[in-house]
Amino acid sequence: MNMERLRQDVMDLAQVGRDTEFGLNRRAFTECDRQGRDWFRQRLAVAGLEVHQDGAANLHGRLEFDGERPAVVMGSHLDTVPGGGPLDGALGVLVGLEVLRTVKERAIPLRFPLEVIDFTDEEGRFGGLFGSQAMAGQLTPERIHGARDLEGTTLVDAMAGWGLDANEALGARRDPNSIHAFLELHIEQGPVLDRRRIGIGVVEAITGLFKWEVRLKGQANHAGTTPMDMRIDAFQGLAEFGGEIHRILEEHGGPNSRATIGRVELKPGAANTIPGLATFSLEVRDTDDRVLKALSDACRRTLSSIARRRDLMFEFDVLSEIPPAKCDPGLVELISREAEAMGQSYLCMASGAAHDAQSMTSVARTGMIFVPSIEGRSHSAGEWTNWEDIEAGANLMLRSVLALAARD
Amino acid sequence: MNMERLRQDVMDLAQVGRDTEFGLNRRAFTECDRQGRDWFRQRLAVAGLEVHQDGAANLHGRLEFDGERPAVVMGSHLDTVPGGGPLDGALGVLVGLEVLRTVKERAIPLRFPLEVIDFTDEEGRFGGLFGSQAMAGQLTPERIHGARDLEGTTLVDAMAGWGLDANEALGARRDPNSIHAFLELHIEQGPVLDRRRIGIGVVEAITGLFKWEVRLKGQANHAGTTPMDMRIDAFQGLAEFGGEIHRILEEHGGPNSRATIGRVELKPGAANTIPGLATFSLEVRDTDDRVLKALSDACRRTLSSIARRRDLMFEFDVLSEIPPAKCDPGLVELISREAEAMGQSYLCMASGAAHDAQSMTSVARTGMIFVPSIEGRSHSAGEWTNWEDIEAGANLMLRSVLALAARD
Repeated sequence: MNMERLRQDVMDLAQVGRDTEFGLNRRAFTECDRQGRDWFRQRLAVAGLEVHQDGAANLHGRLEFDGERPAVVMGSHLDTVPGGGPLDGALGVLVGLEVLRTVKERAIPLRFPLEVIDFTDEEGRFGGLFGSQAMAGQLTPERIHGARDLEGTTLVDAMAGWGLDANEALGARRDPNSIHAFLELHIEQGPVLDRRRIGIGVVEAITGLFKWEVRLKGQANHAGTTPMDMRIDAFQGLAEFGGEIHRILEEHGGPNSRATIGRVELKPGAANTIPGLATFSLEVRDTDDRVLKALSDACRRTLSSIARRRDLMFEFDVLSEIPPAKCDPGLVELISREAEAMGQSYLCMASGAAHDAQSMTSVARTGMIFVPSIEGRSHSAGEWTNWEDIEAGANLMLRSVLALAARD
Repeated sequence: MNMERLRQDVMDLAQVGRDTEFGLNRRAFTECDRQGRDWFRQRLAVAGLEVHQDGAANLHGRLEFDGERPAVVMGSHLDTVPGGGPLDGALGVLVGLEVLRTVKERAIPLRFPLEVIDFTDEEGRFGGLFGSQAMAGQLTPERIHGARDLEGTTLVDAMAGWGLDANEALGARRDPNSIHAFLELHIEQGPVLDRRRIGIGVVEAITGLFKWEVRLKGQANHAGTTPMDMRIDAFQGLAEFGGEIHRILEEHGGPNSRATIGRVELKPGAANTIPGLATFSLEVRDTDDRVLKALSDACRRTLSSIARRRDLMFEFDVLSEIPPAKCDPGLVELISREAEAMGQSYLCMASGAAHDAQSMTSVARTGMIFVPSIEGRSHSAGEWTNWEDIEAGANLMLRSVLALAARD
């Protein structure tokens, strides 16, 4: 592999949509996203690879694609969160590009065509995983027409602004027989590999999650004149539940379980008023559907019991529910074997974050390679990975792709 | 007493600054506040009482005031919070007015002059208790020139808009020898009298308080990729402290202790991000300085220990500190005796809210009479007191004033 070229690609792309203070800003269907895509399209063309854009605006670079043989597909995304870093998504696309260039330049004979995809709106300006869900046939007309960003712009309008018809995203669905295997390389976005000083993560499963908006309703009252035993304090209910999260995970969760309260709003919200309403987010993740169900039941039971005991009213809305996804055991084994052959230390692990690979599990056997994130930093300008770890990940991807696609 | 006239006054004043949806809005130095004052000034004139305005814009109605004999002074405030009710402050001023009218009309011979005061900005557009602190000599030029409302208007400009020089508030200071006693009637603004079905509260002390802004700093991280044991979750520190409040009050507080977390802000504040910063208000009240000190120490110790154990950073700013104030035991006894003579049930109790009487304790012996608030409601359009309770309170005020000021 031409590591210097890969490094130059990473550096070049890190200038596209760059805000000097706050990292990258290539949200889907923005001008900066277009610049990123144009840059990628040009890199594909320079490399002599076939360029294809599907109905969901996914950009495909193809080598020996003939519509007959199933392809070995790599993919990730070039869009970023606002204030994102240079590697999240981009690294997987650029490593895929370098794999195709290497195979082409060395004229390595292939059993199966190769493909690298830049998926549309992974980061969620319009809900997230849009391009990969389109390829997996998971989109509905309702989802397409209901999608809007935080400013109220609809996906339909955003795509029309680029001369695209959002309805055609339904046509991006890919026949499962057209994909031999799907592989994604991504930064871990967590601290585990970095803390344990392991260069490679082989992903076995991607966590599913449920996200609730919970409301505990009490009674707003004067903080001075209302004795402690006459209060119906919504914050106290929230604090008690916060303290129960550890127990709930111990009793019902496993090593891949996570539970987070990340957003809290108290009303009226004055220092001298007892909170009458606590609204908060609860996000719980696990790699096992049954564990997620048990955690959901336990959270509901605990919140009900706290509310009953404290005279609060408990309500919640489900904001999202994403089922866990398993990587293909055969691919986990293949990637692990190649890492061993490289003499590379690796850790079989779960992904706590969502990835395009998650959508692809429903349409193709799927594998994922993680490289470490320094101090677990991600979604920030400080996101980075040591260059030797990037090289190891890129080589592992090349070896895995060749093991799947090269003629013996 | 002419209860029908008092009732009409309450009803008339409840129309001044009335917003049909959100209650009353007579914030200090607004047009509605001016209308309320003009109305009161006119009622004083109609009653044939001397009208005096001091340098802090406090309005005094006076009977037999001669600058020689100390006066028996009643007072409260006509300003309201935004969305306030018809009784908070106003009732005490109107009962005082009715007492003066009754004494004058019946030509009851007096040993001491009588005075009723509408204090300026009790509710705190510019910090609160402004008029009573001016009379108690507690103002400083710094306080006067630093005061501004939430929109940034300075007190100096607001007073200049009325043709007043804010510096003259320093001259409103009253010689302690000019006040024989100060009495304030006020609604309880809490649920205690209403729940216990007792018509009168005789206030023994007014709680002091400390108000902190507390910051617990952890590390913002991805809620999916960061294992539970690698988190430094600022919200979890807050939740643990919330759960400790009950213990802190049990160990170090008394029956008049209150502790409230009324405002919370988590940052970054996203459902899928572990909070890196929890900023919250902590407001603690008690009637005893030593208890307040013990509670302050216990809160600091607990927060430090939680922060240490969880790797958080703990900081706090003191937003305000108000010492508790004691009512005069002689006046507590006098008011209680008069209530007994009326056959009226009463409860000796603490005030959890701040009142003008609090400032006045430093310059005069002070007594306070509470009437019940239905369901403890206050600072809202739903604030009300049963009319028979208002009558009992007004009669008790008249009897107490006569006991202090009438010739035998």
